[in-house]
Amino acid sequence: MVLSVMEREIAWGDLDALGIVFYPRYYEWIDAAGHQFFKIIDLNLYELWEKRNIQFGLLETSCRYFKPGRYGLKIKIKTRLEELSKKTVLLRHEIQQADDEKMVEGFEKRICMNVTDIKNFKSMDIPQDLFAVLENAGRD
Amino acid sequence: MVLSVMEREIAWGDLDALGIVFYPRYYEWIDAAGHQFFKIIDLNLYELWEKRNIQFGLLETSCRYFKPGRYGLKIKIKTRLEELSKKTVLLRHEIQQADDEKMVEGFEKRICMNVTDIKNFKSMDIPQDLFAVLENAGRD
Amino acid sequence: MVLSVMEREIAWGDLDALGIVFYPRYYEWIDAAGHQFFKIIDLNLYELWEKRNIQFGLLETSCRYFKPGRYGLKIKIKTRLEELSKKTVLLRHEIQQADDEKMVEGFEKRICMNVTDIKNFKSMDIPQDLFAVLENAGRD
Amino acid sequence: MVLSVMEREIAWGDLDALGIVFYPRYYEWIDAAGHQFFKIIDLNLYELWEKRNIQFGLLETSCRYFKPGRYGLKIKIKTRLEELSKKTVLLRHEIQQADDEKMVEGFEKRICMNVTDIKNFKSMDIPQDLFAVLENAGRD
Repeated sequence: MVLSVMEREIAWGDLDALGIVFYPRYYEWIDAAGHQFFKIIDLNLYELWEKRNIQFGLLETSCRYFKPGRYGLKIKIKTRLEELSKKTVLLRHEIQQADDEKMVEGFEKRICMNVTDIKNFKSMDIPQDLFAVLENAGRD
Repeated sequence: MVLSVMEREIAWGDLDALGIVFYPRYYEWIDAAGHQFFKIIDLNLYELWEKRNIQFGLLETSCRYFKPGRYGLKIKIKTRLEELSKKTVLLRHEIQQADDEKMVEGFEKRICMNVTDIKNFKSMDIPQDLFAVLENAGRD
Repeated sequence: MVLSVMEREIAWGDLDALGIVFYPRYYEWIDAAGHQFFKIIDLNLYELWEKRNIQFGLLETSCRYFKPGRYGLKIKIKTRLEELSKKTVLLRHEIQQADDEKMVEGFEKRICMNVTDIKNFKSMDIPQDLFAVLENAGRD
Repeated sequence: MVLSVMEREIAWGDLDALGIVFYPRYYEWIDAAGHQFFKIIDLNLYELWEKRNIQFGLLETSCRYFKPGRYGLKIKIKTRLEELSKKTVLLRHEIQQADDEKMVEGFEKRICMNVTDIKNFKSMDIPQDLFAVLENAGRD
């Protein structure tokens, strides 16, 4: 199973007035971690769009919060493929402190889309070659 | 039942490279809509913090996406209290286009916290006076 | 002279750990205010891009900060065209509290670009019809 | 002279509809790079606030844009202290591609503030011990 790990440090601009991470930031990091996951398995999402007019759009996202993030903390965002269906893929993300303590756990469920008509995206079956790559990335 | 409605217009800076809203923005708006909900029922969250060292911190958030948001669209974020327990409150948010078509539906589950020690928040029962206000706001 | 006024309320998510607006937010609002300015004078920037492959890209931005923005404050962003040259336009933005007290003053200097080749933007003279509209918008 | 270098990769969420970095993101990175600069010279801004009620607040920020940032580009933000006065410090930031080509150049001018009264910040002379550290950091 492919496990992508992205590291970052919590910055001043990520904090709210209580001095803890403002939660939409977690989703920004999770989105970036998802893109890194795809890059690692050699599916660059930007190229997929440019060359084949395919994107994986969001159906659903969710996070549960276990420990607040604070200034200067070094964190890891670990991403793996949890579910794969004909049209959809579900990425599971876990945000941990340096000592592996869980801060946030969440997922992104994405659907394969034909975006040739930029004003009218259409869901589609994941093409066979991409499906094979994804299946392999999720295999234990 | 109290229904809070916040209006805004989708701006250039909300869009991603596909020309649709980058999804963490929806959570930013939902957070602002939640604060407005509390303000409408006369529970200003900032004053609650300053005067009583109480905050409603996040346990869980989630969104499902039905239609992409595009440049210049006028949208409404409708917020209501869906669940209330001894320690927690769940706000349901629906983001709609001007014609009421659903774009995004999500929730925030928040837990009542004593934040006197800014480095160590503690969950607590919602104080009785606040509970009464919340119960009333959720009543049909 | 056209004066565009955009109103908004400072939200929880705009604040940093000191409880004042994190300054990149001001630039987000200024960008949105600039887009509104163009819309008011009937130059929808998104349509300009889609229909004529023209955009006004950033050359320079700047802000000076006079008073910190705080939770719940209602603010106005006032925008006017201050300079116009063959290729460039400079928008002046002032962010004020409800009582007109100045919080932030800044500008955006933008250059007219041909973006037909999405990977290689080229600066160009502002087309005559657009120049006339802009000249008129800046006239006292 | 101390030169702080921060590295990052341009992510999907940093892009606008043209596929280039939305400029307020540059200011977010510059703010983080400024905090890193202070950390490198052993002036942790968060601790300075907590232990001595001092912060360096923004007076002015500015950026000039030379080349658009695009998806997946690895960039460096180089930060150095350019000016120091009794009350203020000016940090110069340059954002470069991996090959050192300049993308953005900007500055942050910050003023030393006593923030004991969280609702009423007061400018103050930079304390002697901090001034010595800053002076040293700016020395060639």
